[in-house]
Amino acid sequence: MPTNSAYTELADRFARMAHFGDALAIIDWDTQTMMPDGAADYRAAQTATLRAFHHQLLTDPAIRSLLDAAEGETLDDWQRANLNEMRRDWVHASAIPGRLVEAHSRAASACEQIWREARPAADFAKVKPALAELLRLTREVAAIKSQVLGVSPYDALLDQFEPGARAADIDLLFDDLAAFLPGFLAEVTRRQPAPVVPPKGPFPIERQRALGVKMMEAMGFDFRFGRLDTSRHPFSSGAPDDARITTRYDEADFMRSLMGVLHETGHAFYELDLPKEWRGQPVGRARSTGMHESQSLIMEMQACRSKGFMAHLAPLAAEAFGRTGEPGWDGATLWAANMRVQPSFIRVDADEVTYPAHIILRYRLEKALFGGALEVDELPAAWNKGMKELLGIVPPDDRLGCLQDIHWYGGGFGYFPGYTLGAVTAAQFFDAARRAIPSLESAIARGDFAPLRGWLATHVHGVGSRYSSAEIVEHATGRTLDAEIFKSHLRKRYLS
Amino acid sequence: MPTNSAYTELADRFARMAHFGDALAIIDWDTQTMMPDGAADYRAAQTATLRAFHHQLLTDPAIRSLLDAAEGETLDDWQRANLNEMRRDWVHASAIPGRLVEAHSRAASACEQIWREARPAADFAKVKPALAELLRLTREVAAIKSQVLGVSPYDALLDQFEPGARAADIDLLFDDLAAFLPGFLAEVTRRQPAPVVPPKGPFPIERQRALGVKMMEAMGFDFRFGRLDTSRHPFSSGAPDDARITTRYDEADFMRSLMGVLHETGHAFYELDLPKEWRGQPVGRARSTGMHESQSLIMEMQACRSKGFMAHLAPLAAEAFGRTGEPGWDGATLWAANMRVQPSFIRVDADEVTYPAHIILRYRLEKALFGGALEVDELPAAWNKGMKELLGIVPPDDRLGCLQDIHWYGGGFGYFPGYTLGAVTAAQFFDAARRAIPSLESAIARGDFAPLRGWLATHVHGVGSRYSSAEIVEHATGRTLDAEIFKSHLRKRYLS
Repeated sequence: MPTNSAYTELADRFARMAHFGDALAIIDWDTQTMMPDGAADYRAAQTATLRAFHHQLLTDPAIRSLLDAAEGETLDDWQRANLNEMRRDWVHASAIPGRLVEAHSRAASACEQIWREARPAADFAKVKPALAELLRLTREVAAIKSQVLGVSPYDALLDQFEPGARAADIDLLFDDLAAFLPGFLAEVTRRQPAPVVPPKGPFPIERQRALGVKMMEAMGFDFRFGRLDTSRHPFSSGAPDDARITTRYDEADFMRSLMGVLHETGHAFYELDLPKEWRGQPVGRARSTGMHESQSLIMEMQACRSKGFMAHLAPLAAEAFGRTGEPGWDGATLWAANMRVQPSFIRVDADEVTYPAHIILRYRLEKALFGGALEVDELPAAWNKGMKELLGIVPPDDRLGCLQDIHWYGGGFGYFPGYTLGAVTAAQFFDAARRAIPSLESAIARGDFAPLRGWLATHVHGVGSRYSSAEIVEHATGRTLDAEIFKSHLRKRYLS
Repeated sequence: MPTNSAYTELADRFARMAHFGDALAIIDWDTQTMMPDGAADYRAAQTATLRAFHHQLLTDPAIRSLLDAAEGETLDDWQRANLNEMRRDWVHASAIPGRLVEAHSRAASACEQIWREARPAADFAKVKPALAELLRLTREVAAIKSQVLGVSPYDALLDQFEPGARAADIDLLFDDLAAFLPGFLAEVTRRQPAPVVPPKGPFPIERQRALGVKMMEAMGFDFRFGRLDTSRHPFSSGAPDDARITTRYDEADFMRSLMGVLHETGHAFYELDLPKEWRGQPVGRARSTGMHESQSLIMEMQACRSKGFMAHLAPLAAEAFGRTGEPGWDGATLWAANMRVQPSFIRVDADEVTYPAHIILRYRLEKALFGGALEVDELPAAWNKGMKELLGIVPPDDRLGCLQDIHWYGGGFGYFPGYTLGAVTAAQFFDAARRAIPSLESAIARGDFAPLRGWLATHVHGVGSRYSSAEIVEHATGRTLDAEIFKSHLRKRYLS
C-alpha cells in the first residue's frame, strides 16, 4: 500500500476521527459519573461544538472522492471491509442535509426534556405534540436514508444500529418468538414453585462495590485497563485500553447491581478484545448494538445466571456481606430467587422470559410508525393492546406504558430490536461455545471465565466489523441466527 | 455590533475554541485522576490529535484577516480588550512554523521522559544532551517570538505566561527581595524558638478528605460547581461552572494536604468568579500564571496560615480526627509548627520565607540561558553557586539540585517567576483588602471568607483579562507592584 494512496489517507483521517470520538466518549462518561450538576449547561454547549466538529471531519467533501478513489486500489480483505465501513459511516453522516440534522437534534432535545416531566405525571398528552414533531423529522431522515440505501424507511433507521439488518428477517425471528412466548409463559408461571425469600439487606454500598470488583477480577477484568463507577443509569463506555462500566446500587438488593456489573463486564470484554491492529479504524469497531448486547447477555444470562455460577457465587456473596452461615446464602436460594418469572409493565425490570415480549411490542409499534400504519395519537391504545396480546396485562397508565422508555422521546427509533437480537444471539453463541469446549460450564461453575472469553475473543471480539452480524453468527455457530436455541435455553432453564 | 462583523465572527470562533480547550482540560484532568494506567499510550495519541485540531482552529488563515478587519470596527472597551487578547493568542500560536512546533514538542516529550529516569539517579549527564537539544529548539522559538513581539527572547517566553511582563521589571522586584532575604532569613532562624511537636498521625485519608471538603465548604466552595479529587501532583483545572481541584494525602501529616486544598481552592475561586458575560472569550479568562498564583497564595499564605485561622482550625481538625481534648490540638501549636523556617534543597517543600529564593535562582538561571550567558554544561555548577548565595546551602547531588523540577525538562522556560510574582501580589492584595474591610481578619478568624472572596471577585476575578496584570494590581491596591508589603508581611509574621 503506497503511503500516498487514497486508502491510506482515509485510514489516517478515520484514525483522527476515532481520537475525536473517543474523547467525546470520555467526556460523556464524565458527564454521567463525575461532572458537578451545575456544569450541565456549559457541558451541553461544549459537547455540541465537539460533535459538530466531529461531524465535519466525516462530511468533509474530500471524503467522497477519497472513498471513490480507494475503491479502485488494491486492498486486502480487511482493508476492503474497512473501506466498506468507512463508506457506511460516511453515507449515514452525509445523507442528511445540515439543516435537517440540526432541526432533528433540537426536536429530540426538546421532546426528551418534556418527556422528563410527562413520564412521572403519566401525561402522554403533554409530550404528544413534541413527539409528533420529532417523529415527523425522523420520518424525513428515514425517507432520505431510505433513498440512499435502497431499503425501506424503517430499515434505514435500523441500519444505523444493526448494519445490514432488515425488518423482513427480524419479523421471522420475532414472530416465531411471539408465537412461542405466551404459551411458554403460561406454562412457566403455572409450574413455578412459590417464591423463595432471598437474604434480606441492607447491603452496604461499599461492600456491594467490593463484591462487584472481586467478581469482575475473577472474570478476568484487568483494572489496569478499565474502571467501575456509579451513575444514574448503568452503561458501558470508554476508549481503547480503557473500558469503563457503571452501575447503581440499591441497599435492599445486591443481586440487581451485581448482575448489572457482570452484564456491563460482558460489554467491556468486547471492547477490550477488539482487534488491536485495527484500532481506530471502522473495521476494528464492535459490529452492532445487537452484537454488543449478545456479549453482555452471554455473560449475565447464559453464564452468571446459571445454577452452577449461583452456587459458586453464594458463599462469596455471604462472605462479602459478613453473612456466612446465615440461612438463604446458598446457591439454590439465590438461583430460585433469580429465576422468578412474572409479567410486568416495565421493560428494564423484566425477567429473561418476558423481556423479549417488551421488545417485540416496541419493534412492531415503531415499524408501524414508519410504515404509515400508526400515528402518535394512537400510540397509547396500540401499546396497551400489544401488552394484552403479548403479556396478558394492561398498564393502568402511560407511565407504566408507552411513556416508560427514553428511546423514542430522544429520537432513538430502530434501536430496540437489538436487545432481543442480542439475547437470541447470546444463546446461540453459548451453545456453540459449549459444544466446542465441553468443560465450559464446569469452568464457569468454578468462576473460571477464561475459556468462554477466549472463545468469544476468537469468534466475535477479534473479528471486529470484518464481517456482517449474520456472517459472524454463522461462522461462529455453524448456522444462521434463529430462535430455536434461545427457546431451548428457556425451556431447559425454566421448565426442566 | 452587526452580526456579520469581523469581531462577531471572531467571538464565535473563539467561543468554539474555548469549548475545545475546556474539553481538553477535562480530558487532562481525567488523565491525572481517573484514567487507568494501561490507557496512557492511547490517551497520548488521542490528546495529540485534539491539540493539533485546537491549534488549527487558531492558526486558520482566516483569523489574521478577521483580526485586521475587526481593528477598524467600532468596539467598546471590553470588546477592544477582547480583540487584543485574541491577537495575543493568535500571535503566540501562529508565529512558530509547524515543523518547529512539532520538533519542539517531540524534544520536550523525549527530554521529560529521560528526566524521569535521570532525576532519581541524580544523573544530570544522562539528560544533558536531550536538555541541550530542547534548549536549542526553545531558543529558536524564543528568537522568532522575540522578532514578532519586539522584545528580548526571554521576555518573549515570559509573555506566554505573564502577558506584558518584562524581565527588566522583574529584576527590580527580585533583586530587592534577593537583597532582603539572606539577612532576614538569618535573623528569623536565629530568633525562632525550638521546634514544636505537632500532633502525630496516622491521619486516615478518608478523614483528611472529609476535613478538606468541610473547610472548602466553609470557605464558600459550592460543590454543585466543582470537585475535590486525588492525584499524584495537586492541581487546579476544569471548565466554566466546573472547578476541579486535587490533592494528595500523607497519613503522617494532615496539614500539608489541607493547606494544599485551601491553596487550590483559591485557584478555583478565581475561575468560578470570572466574568460570566465574557465566558469563552479571551478577555474572560484569568489574567496570568502569576495572577492565578496570587489567588491561591492569598487564600493559603495570607488567610489560612494566619494565627487567627489556625486557632479557628485547631478544634475542627481535632474533631475531624476524633482527637478533641488531646494535647497539641490548639491554634498556638498548629501555628508554631506551620511557621518553621529552614533553608532546604527542594522548592516544593520550602517554607514561605525561603520559597522566593528558590524562584529567584531559577529565574536568574533561565534568563542567563536565553541571554547567552549560560550553557547546559554549566547548569549544575551555576545552580549550586546560586543556592549558596541565596540560601547558604549547597545540594549534595543534582537530584536535590538542578534536576528537581520538571519545568525545564518539559520545555517550560519563563514559567517560574509567576510563583513569586504571585506571592508578592497576594501580600499587596491582602493588605488593600484589609484596609478596605477593617473586619477582614476577624472574619477569617471565624472561618468567614465571604468578605475576602467578595473583594477579590470585584477587583481581580470579575475583571478577567480586561486589564494587564500591572493595571489590575494598581487599580485594586492604589499602587504599582513592589516588594515592600510582602517584606512587611514577612517581618510581621516571622519577627514580631
